[in-house]
Amino acid sequence: MKNVLAKDLYTKKRDFGDESVVLTGWIRTIRNSKKIAFIEVNDGSYIKNVQVIVKSDLDNFDDVIKLPISSTLKVTGKLIETPDAQQPFEIHAEKVDIEGVSDLDYPLQKKKQSLEYLRSIAHLRPRTNTFYAVFKIRSLAAFAIHQYLQNRGFVYVNTPIVTSSDTEGAGEMFQITSLDQNDLPKDANGKVDYSKDFFGQETNLTVSGQLPVEAFALAFRNVYTFGPTFRAENSHTKRHAAEFWMIEPEMAFADLDDIIATSEDMLKYVINYLLKNASEDLQFLNDNVDDNLIKLLQTTVNEKFARITYTEAIDLLEKADVDFKYPVKWGIDLKAEHERYLSEKVFGNPVFVTDYPRNIKAFYMRDNDDGKTVAASDLLVPRIGELIGGSQREEREKELADKMDEFHLSRDEYEWYLELRKYGGTKHSGFGIGFERLLMYVTGMDNIRDVIPYPRTQGSIKF
Amino acid sequence: MKNVLAKDLYTKKRDFGDESVVLTGWIRTIRNSKKIAFIEVNDGSYIKNVQVIVKSDLDNFDDVIKLPISSTLKVTGKLIETPDAQQPFEIHAEKVDIEGVSDLDYPLQKKKQSLEYLRSIAHLRPRTNTFYAVFKIRSLAAFAIHQYLQNRGFVYVNTPIVTSSDTEGAGEMFQITSLDQNDLPKDANGKVDYSKDFFGQETNLTVSGQLPVEAFALAFRNVYTFGPTFRAENSHTKRHAAEFWMIEPEMAFADLDDIIATSEDMLKYVINYLLKNASEDLQFLNDNVDDNLIKLLQTTVNEKFARITYTEAIDLLEKADVDFKYPVKWGIDLKAEHERYLSEKVFGNPVFVTDYPRNIKAFYMRDNDDGKTVAASDLLVPRIGELIGGSQREEREKELADKMDEFHLSRDEYEWYLELRKYGGTKHSGFGIGFERLLMYVTGMDNIRDVIPYPRTQGSIKF
Repeated sequence: MKNVLAKDLYTKKRDFGDESVVLTGWIRTIRNSKKIAFIEVNDGSYIKNVQVIVKSDLDNFDDVIKLPISSTLKVTGKLIETPDAQQPFEIHAEKVDIEGVSDLDYPLQKKKQSLEYLRSIAHLRPRTNTFYAVFKIRSLAAFAIHQYLQNRGFVYVNTPIVTSSDTEGAGEMFQITSLDQNDLPKDANGKVDYSKDFFGQETNLTVSGQLPVEAFALAFRNVYTFGPTFRAENSHTKRHAAEFWMIEPEMAFADLDDIIATSEDMLKYVINYLLKNASEDLQFLNDNVDDNLIKLLQTTVNEKFARITYTEAIDLLEKADVDFKYPVKWGIDLKAEHERYLSEKVFGNPVFVTDYPRNIKAFYMRDNDDGKTVAASDLLVPRIGELIGGSQREEREKELADKMDEFHLSRDEYEWYLELRKYGGTKHSGFGIGFERLLMYVTGMDNIRDVIPYPRTQGSIKF
Repeated sequence: MKNVLAKDLYTKKRDFGDESVVLTGWIRTIRNSKKIAFIEVNDGSYIKNVQVIVKSDLDNFDDVIKLPISSTLKVTGKLIETPDAQQPFEIHAEKVDIEGVSDLDYPLQKKKQSLEYLRSIAHLRPRTNTFYAVFKIRSLAAFAIHQYLQNRGFVYVNTPIVTSSDTEGAGEMFQITSLDQNDLPKDANGKVDYSKDFFGQETNLTVSGQLPVEAFALAFRNVYTFGPTFRAENSHTKRHAAEFWMIEPEMAFADLDDIIATSEDMLKYVINYLLKNASEDLQFLNDNVDDNLIKLLQTTVNEKFARITYTEAIDLLEKADVDFKYPVKWGIDLKAEHERYLSEKVFGNPVFVTDYPRNIKAFYMRDNDDGKTVAASDLLVPRIGELIGGSQREEREKELADKMDEFHLSRDEYEWYLELRKYGGTKHSGFGIGFERLLMYVTGMDNIRDVIPYPRTQGSIKF
């Protein structure tokens, strides 16, 4: 007897020999008459089910046919070729062991349920085909990113989650504490005495690993982070979550052109990996969620991304025959509506926009010689807007220190960051990808809550 | 002209043709006379330096030879074979561009510095050979784990970092809040009103992703987490950090024997991956940190791990001619001294200890029929003690609910977890690996602070 997995049965050479096979899995559907039952079993390894034929001469036939959906079975039987059927094979059961009997009120009965309802049962929704496909793709995309970077010698760095600084110099952060909230220690001025807290000072959840990973780029040349980041923003949009994952590659001896080339190459690598390794999952999403999905992904990998400056982008937006909600003029931060117009209507594909006004970007971005813009680049993609944000970093110690003053950041707090310029500083650049934005792009899902296993948003923390 | 990397020069076929090569990197050492300078350049891609020969006929020879350590260069020159020298090749510079001039008070001068001091400059220490090797190994080990699991169809699940529950039913947790600590809202009883907090209730940093990932094992069969976890413990030991990473594979239709086999196979895979892909880094650590390191790793991969029960382990410890600090009797939780005695003295290799007393283990572990022990297994390894902890999970709804009562856990809070048994429950098992413990094992470092890029321990949160 040989244990088999659905994935192997569907994707590898099948052996229809005499040896019995053993399949374990969950009942997805069951149709039966008095003499025979057709059971669709999903074993978790593949989005498609395996059809199991059970005949009434089985000892426990009457028990088996009464099993509720999602009960678990261990089926021993013969693998039979069925060239004329919908599925190329089925299993004729010789023995069925009942592993677990599900309750009759199982919430995932066959009819289609709303995504909103499924969010309320996040512990069960991966059993639906839609979320099976989404979270399988999430796993494969994460691995493709690691593989792309590791194959090119990038070193993975786990930057800290608990931090005492705020990378962006702005943004709402979550505070972390081990103090008893109902009995806070106070200092002489009646303020909370953080010297009594676990770390001896006020601490927060990280919003980005970029600054700490820059230190590692100046030792390992090419590095990346891939971990969770947090924002305590009261944004009730489909694109914002309080907890999300970011990938932040950082490259020494690299300029803006280098990271633009690397980020385009990496994005195409990940999508090609999914087209090859998640074809059934993508097909399901194309059939059921977004019928333009596979075409969009194929266009993305086949065409070179366009590249324009921010100033050119503003020109295009000012000439556009569109009534934007947020008016366009040089100096504004682009909104999703502008980003989508550029990528969807003007270019029909991802487009890099470079050289943004220095005042709307972070302090660490390298000033261009024009005194007005910085060496930054955002990749705008259809349906999503900004997917990747990158920049060349200000590597000149004096310019960086002056800019920190201008942006009201403490030189003392960032002394170690300035030291990266003082000791062995060199040209370096990096970019960040919001992992969930990438997943929305490659799955067709249009709410960030539906690409995160257990999403955390304002007021929502079940599980 | 062709850009080259040290890693390729050392590990691939070298091309000593006429074309000039370009190398960028940091000066590690510089020796010079009036006519010639020998510069050791590290370009970040490899632990070994490239020797660059600069002659006085170069325009900027006088500037170059005055450069402080850790200044950055772009060297254009000829790659020359040097079969009789220590290094098999060197670069004869035709041109040297100075990219960045380091400060003379660079803290990492050539002499050896203490690990304690290097912890205080965590942003610079990856530039030392020791930490270069450690963090390169950290990156490669992380990838080897992903590769092992993905190649076997395991699905990577990002379980939440912010959580409202406590997996272990114990343990000190960090609290997360967006409330103004100096102006906390209070309810009618004068207690903090968490309904005003970001998530509308009290929230914590996760201590384990196991419970949420179990839900995914019951959809995808084989899954894993790999992410940060947190403990607010006041432990000032070399083995404890407040923030550390865990890998938690979970397998449906698998029992204790299955996870013991998988965890042994996975550990050996990771070590073999490092022996192959980090040989120079391991050799450096073997020469400078622990001269038994490579031998230990080779023994680990070459021999089958032993397996004994907890009861047998207690027998061995009671018979041991050792004066343990913590006395031994059936029912105690094994301490590091006991774990190390068993793996180092009795077996000289990793050993699985199974079937621990139910009262010292977590509520979710499956009760054995003896009524006294659970189907749990810890892997004890030399130098470290416990490296992997696993168990078969209690899949029987009634038994689990009763045990939750017995362990004083709220059925309401864990209702979703009970539902995993109610709907499609089946035999399943999983294990957790502390990533930093694994790294201490494979690097020879004996303080957890030295295998974490920016360690977080009580009172310590610089950077």
